[in-house]
Amino acid sequence: MKGWLFTQTGVPLKLIEKEDPHATPNHVVIDVKATGLCHSDVAALEDPGWMPLFPNGPVIMGHECAGIVTEVGEGVVDLKIGDRVGVNPLDHETREATGYNYDGGYANKVRVPAKQCVKIPDGVSFVEGAASTDAGLTAYHALFAIGEAKSGTKVGIIGIGGLGQFAAQMAMIKGCEVYATDVSPAARKLAEELGCKKVYEQVLDLKEAECELIVDYAGFGQTTADALDAVKPGGTVVIVGMGILQSTINTYLMITKQLKLLGSNGGTVEDLKGVYDCFSTGKMSPQLTTIPFEEIDKGLEKLKNHEVKGRLVAVFE
Amino acid sequence: MKGWLFTQTGVPLKLIEKEDPHATPNHVVIDVKATGLCHSDVAALEDPGWMPLFPNGPVIMGHECAGIVTEVGEGVVDLKIGDRVGVNPLDHETREATGYNYDGGYANKVRVPAKQCVKIPDGVSFVEGAASTDAGLTAYHALFAIGEAKSGTKVGIIGIGGLGQFAAQMAMIKGCEVYATDVSPAARKLAEELGCKKVYEQVLDLKEAECELIVDYAGFGQTTADALDAVKPGGTVVIVGMGILQSTINTYLMITKQLKLLGSNGGTVEDLKGVYDCFSTGKMSPQLTTIPFEEIDKGLEKLKNHEVKGRLVAVFE
Repeated sequence: MKGWLFTQTGVPLKLIEKEDPHATPNHVVIDVKATGLCHSDVAALEDPGWMPLFPNGPVIMGHECAGIVTEVGEGVVDLKIGDRVGVNPLDHETREATGYNYDGGYANKVRVPAKQCVKIPDGVSFVEGAASTDAGLTAYHALFAIGEAKSGTKVGIIGIGGLGQFAAQMAMIKGCEVYATDVSPAARKLAEELGCKKVYEQVLDLKEAECELIVDYAGFGQTTADALDAVKPGGTVVIVGMGILQSTINTYLMITKQLKLLGSNGGTVEDLKGVYDCFSTGKMSPQLTTIPFEEIDKGLEKLKNHEVKGRLVAVFE
Repeated sequence: MKGWLFTQTGVPLKLIEKEDPHATPNHVVIDVKATGLCHSDVAALEDPGWMPLFPNGPVIMGHECAGIVTEVGEGVVDLKIGDRVGVNPLDHETREATGYNYDGGYANKVRVPAKQCVKIPDGVSFVEGAASTDAGLTAYHALFAIGEAKSGTKVGIIGIGGLGQFAAQMAMIKGCEVYATDVSPAARKLAEELGCKKVYEQVLDLKEAECELIVDYAGFGQTTADALDAVKPGGTVVIVGMGILQSTINTYLMITKQLKLLGSNGGTVEDLKGVYDCFSTGKMSPQLTTIPFEEIDKGLEKLKNHEVKGRLVAVFE
């Protein structure tokens, strides 16, 4: 097999060859067909603060992969050779993640725990299946598992970037009334094209929409504070984005409006199934850009330089 | 009847006589036997910011009363003359409160909506019944209705003042494992005497207790931020206290630990029933100081000057 090896912060990824992985108990081996490139990988290459997340030394990077099952380990009952699957990167029990604790998806083969795999429905591509495992999953978990959005819920979405786009589309598919806010005119135009009921420039403008739920996919501190101001009394604000890592909030508003502020992190295989169900409706159209597997290093460079529109996914010929 | 009239901020309360109230539909008249004195009344006398809460002009103050039903209006089915009741001050539907929107409990008679009344169990005094309607109710709502504390829950309590004392005792009665924190040595001593499992000086010290729920009855900004740091991953922090009205929180912790931060405001008649059930066990012993009705003005002065230990309750001979 071949894959892009991460050694440490500051050292570029290196395309290497190594022995093919084989299935171990409760694991499967996947022929990777598509794998998403993530800003967190760019961050790990730049910021040594990420090194503790790679406790086992050099590792093939990549945590957003989808492909075809080629080997099935002992004890695996729900998967068989030939299944098309996507992989939820983080095991919430073991706290181990694909492409961090063990070899990941910037490779043509990967071995993952079977319980982290979700079958990709017919009609959903590997590229969509891969992009769903991080941006889709995280957006879905925040909206539905943490925020408890339901049909008819008035939802405010802060930031129509990678996650927010997924969120807006999935919320509409599930029957929510979606309002969006973004400081970028291009993002606002996109939100309008996606069919958001109303699109605003500032978070505080959301006030008139009286949302029961606002999800902050930007997380720039003031966005969270303003969301608490804008949300309906008794309402919920979910924080997902880590634009900056603190927020000065008005606790008087939190108490008198009896608000909920909830943190959301990643998602579960149930959430990934939910994302795939949304794709099965045929109504999802997130912006996806593909590159060949051999250009993953260049792709991460582009991500770093903000030269990518939508989600970047590497594909294998 | 006689009562203490609030005219406006800066003007002392005045003991006046006026015509007795009579029961109107869905209302009852109560002979007040005990009425709690509250810091918010001190605040309204000092800070004109409170005036919007008194929209109907001069009014008899007091929102923590208990007494005997003497008149029952048309449509009232659950109460009869002679019932011993406490009054939940705030109607969450109408947003009207006793002693703010209409004449309150610093009086020997008061007319209140029947649905705001809760029967005081045998063996629970009027003084306890009155003190329960604000400190008890607010403490209970935060712990159980918002924080969802249950038997076995590890609960951290920040601030063993008026509310925190109630909270610690009620949580222990309900089978919680209670940890307390207070900067005051006297409050820590009290928390130990009440039977808290461990008592700390700093909120961050709570970390070792791995609480699933921390309720911040102090609300000094940093206390809330530290509670988010100290609480167990997946845990809940409830804010009740309004020591200062903002807090700079670490959103990275909120997201990665997937925390809940919840505002809690007042309580419901169900909560008040819960407080009375706690008193019925005979295990509650909050610090209560009584004064005669005629000295309510002096009592508020003492509250203002921090000369009161525990909850101050005026009684009627």
